[in-house]
Amino acid sequence: MLTGKNYVAGELTADETSVFESVNPKNNEKEAKFYNASEKDVDAAVEKAAEAFPEYSALPASRRAEFLNAIAQEILELGEELIQTYCSESGLPEGRAQGERGRTVNQLKAFADYITTENWKDEYKDEPNPERQPLPKPGLLRTSVAIGPVAVFGASNFPLAFSTAGGDTASALAAGCPVVVKGHPAHPGTGELVASAIVKAAEKTGIPSGVFSNLNSSGIEVGELLVKHPKIKGVGFTGSLRGGRALYDLAAKREEPIPVFAEMGSVNPVIVTETAIEKRGEAIAKQIAGSYTLGAGQFCTNPGIILKMGDNTVFESHLKQFSEEIEAQCMLHSGIKKAFQEGKNQLLDEKGVQVLSGSDDTENNMAAGTIVKVSAENFIQNEKLQTEVFGPFTMIVTCSNFQELNSALEKLHGQLTASIIAEPEDFSSLKASVAILQHKAGRVIYNAMPTGVEVSPAMTHGGPYPASTDSRFTSVGIPAIKRWLRPVSFQDFPEELLP
Amino acid sequence: MLTGKNYVAGELTADETSVFESVNPKNNEKEAKFYNASEKDVDAAVEKAAEAFPEYSALPASRRAEFLNAIAQEILELGEELIQTYCSESGLPEGRAQGERGRTVNQLKAFADYITTENWKDEYKDEPNPERQPLPKPGLLRTSVAIGPVAVFGASNFPLAFSTAGGDTASALAAGCPVVVKGHPAHPGTGELVASAIVKAAEKTGIPSGVFSNLNSSGIEVGELLVKHPKIKGVGFTGSLRGGRALYDLAAKREEPIPVFAEMGSVNPVIVTETAIEKRGEAIAKQIAGSYTLGAGQFCTNPGIILKMGDNTVFESHLKQFSEEIEAQCMLHSGIKKAFQEGKNQLLDEKGVQVLSGSDDTENNMAAGTIVKVSAENFIQNEKLQTEVFGPFTMIVTCSNFQELNSALEKLHGQLTASIIAEPEDFSSLKASVAILQHKAGRVIYNAMPTGVEVSPAMTHGGPYPASTDSRFTSVGIPAIKRWLRPVSFQDFPEELLP
Repeated sequence: MLTGKNYVAGELTADETSVFESVNPKNNEKEAKFYNASEKDVDAAVEKAAEAFPEYSALPASRRAEFLNAIAQEILELGEELIQTYCSESGLPEGRAQGERGRTVNQLKAFADYITTENWKDEYKDEPNPERQPLPKPGLLRTSVAIGPVAVFGASNFPLAFSTAGGDTASALAAGCPVVVKGHPAHPGTGELVASAIVKAAEKTGIPSGVFSNLNSSGIEVGELLVKHPKIKGVGFTGSLRGGRALYDLAAKREEPIPVFAEMGSVNPVIVTETAIEKRGEAIAKQIAGSYTLGAGQFCTNPGIILKMGDNTVFESHLKQFSEEIEAQCMLHSGIKKAFQEGKNQLLDEKGVQVLSGSDDTENNMAAGTIVKVSAENFIQNEKLQTEVFGPFTMIVTCSNFQELNSALEKLHGQLTASIIAEPEDFSSLKASVAILQHKAGRVIYNAMPTGVEVSPAMTHGGPYPASTDSRFTSVGIPAIKRWLRPVSFQDFPEELLP
Repeated sequence: MLTGKNYVAGELTADETSVFESVNPKNNEKEAKFYNASEKDVDAAVEKAAEAFPEYSALPASRRAEFLNAIAQEILELGEELIQTYCSESGLPEGRAQGERGRTVNQLKAFADYITTENWKDEYKDEPNPERQPLPKPGLLRTSVAIGPVAVFGASNFPLAFSTAGGDTASALAAGCPVVVKGHPAHPGTGELVASAIVKAAEKTGIPSGVFSNLNSSGIEVGELLVKHPKIKGVGFTGSLRGGRALYDLAAKREEPIPVFAEMGSVNPVIVTETAIEKRGEAIAKQIAGSYTLGAGQFCTNPGIILKMGDNTVFESHLKQFSEEIEAQCMLHSGIKKAFQEGKNQLLDEKGVQVLSGSDDTENNMAAGTIVKVSAENFIQNEKLQTEVFGPFTMIVTCSNFQELNSALEKLHGQLTASIIAEPEDFSSLKASVAILQHKAGRVIYNAMPTGVEVSPAMTHGGPYPASTDSRFTSVGIPAIKRWLRPVSFQDFPEELLP
């Protein structure tokens, strides 16, 4: 049963003076009432988190693993109510809800497993040498400590896997950091249900309640208060460049600046060579059409630029055909739908941009795929063509040869991913392109679409700005935990005195 | 032979319209003329660095190792001229110059060795599983790439080990990042000599000249231009909180924010238990007196706060006596001497601060040790007492019991180090103090002074703000290289196409 309230260290709070409603994007109808967190709630949540921090971070990692596994279990036990709430708040289909729940649960379990492995703190020892001349060599043990309470911002496009108990929360809790979540107002019900699962898991496993709070917010105030709070020591965010940059700027202006890990999406260029098109153009066109419209194009790894080599126009016809066969899908909320249309229209006004495929506005928040086309020459000259249009949109950039391709690649902003669809015959020509791409993207892919981010140890989901605010860390996969840890060295420490 | 000129990608440049002079702090006499780098020099240095970056970072690591070893060799070949220039510019004694040269050379060699070891790029593989249901598992290879051209700021207190070819430069060059150095105006001659060694080493080992530039600057303009330049991708700095924070703020305001690794010093609290004082108070007093006056107290790990437990005043008399036996030493330059006196005077005006030992101003830039004393009660109430006084200065904070000690520790700002001088009988009482200190400092030391930073893999030289701007990294020791690398994952990549 939804209450619409905030969870502040296990307690439900509600301030009747500031409310908002959840909306079903399929019909724009209001569904349930939610209470915005007050300034008092923010302060209480952070203070409780700071109080809980020393105890929580000092627990044996196995206790935190127990907690994470219990959260996974409690999320599963929310059953059908979670799936139905997710679908009605996000407009996403049931299969996606189930898949994302599975991923969320698996992430929690994966971090639980990881912190019970031997060297998750990256410990390293330098042996002492008291005989060394001119000075004795000290013994050093380097280990890791959690940075402190962390603020996590729910992501509109991942109501489960990158929100309340998503990757940022799971990795921070695993590291030993209490978490205060600023829920996304597009799915507050999903957020409250998951928050209730975390609160239950904490009770059942004897974890201090201050370790977790969930704050509703339909505006920007709660998020701002959180990031500015002196006892918050780090921020996790997945969303737009504008939103991520605003948080980064706030954090940088603090008396004590703190790290902000904002993953802000990108246009994820896909190179398709002439040879690949000749050999299997139709199949590639089908893959691209499926990828750029997946989840109504609302993925940060959506392929927004197709660098198409050669002058094969049959490939374009295939792409148009497959794209038009895919039905319009519901976007996450009316704001995203509006931004999608405005973004498209702005790009259509740019020099040399032709529409290849795309319908006019569809009813309510539905969106169908749009493909535009522009020459590499125009692309190279106009940075605005790199603006991300969040939704089912992609732009073919026609390149006549590898030299022109590489000039276009040189101009690219930082990206989460870059893909190469090619054949072995292309390898020698592609060497220079790969050399460029490794400095532009966090993940470089061969013969696959960028959508689909494996949650695994070798994954890098991040990349040079503006893909993320800190390219040295990943937000997906086990190394995401490193964001919430810092090294500390103990010099000549007796075993009995080590924490 | 000193020319006073800048090295811009191997070329000497001089703009006659803007010059300054090096000064011998022992007599305040001017020594040699230097040319400030012009805006054109800054731009040319960065552009050449950016041009050299793809080639330099793509070289086999063994080629970069050759370059680093050649720099070490060329520095040694500068011989007596380097030592004499160092001493006359810094006022530091010859033994220190030789020691620091040794450390600088060893750092270069250590990074050279490290990048020829097997897994310096922290590579990790996820094996593919094409049979996995519902989706095949991709293969992933995570590796590291250099972030791009880096700006390094010379440190006044380490003319060799943290300046032109110091730890920041050595680690960045090892990672594959070209370096543009903004030399410290207090030792421009030392800087030019070392720069000439780097330029020679590049020529001899066939490294592109754009990989290194050395820019003179007596003001702040050159540094600001460097940090704001869009092609600079990271900053290394060792110096004051004010200087480091200014660079951090500039970098955060860029269109593309970049990481700033500023190590800004701290007051490095040293706890001395009552038991330790009873057992070996005289020896401890001697150690502390030696440590806080070492190098005229001009170390970022200088013990600036002694948390003394119990009411043994003989210990204080010993400390005063040993301190007064140490002769006044020359400070690095007149600006530092002036700041030392002003800083001392400001602290003396604070409530409850008594002078235990300390002479009035000595001639020229000489400074003798000063010890003041304050109660834990006053310390806890007054944040200003944590202000670092850079020089031979320390403050005894008297604590009557462990509870009061821990209240004082809770109030501490971020520190590079925290030390505990104790006996095994204290361990059970100290557990809570260690739990606090691990969240306050980058290195926690048992029964040794904080001065002396071992250059080794398990060292952490950094700490929570304001000790450094990024506590997740160390500026001393092999892991310092991580500051200049970011991860990139190659998905399903054929071996032949990997860079």
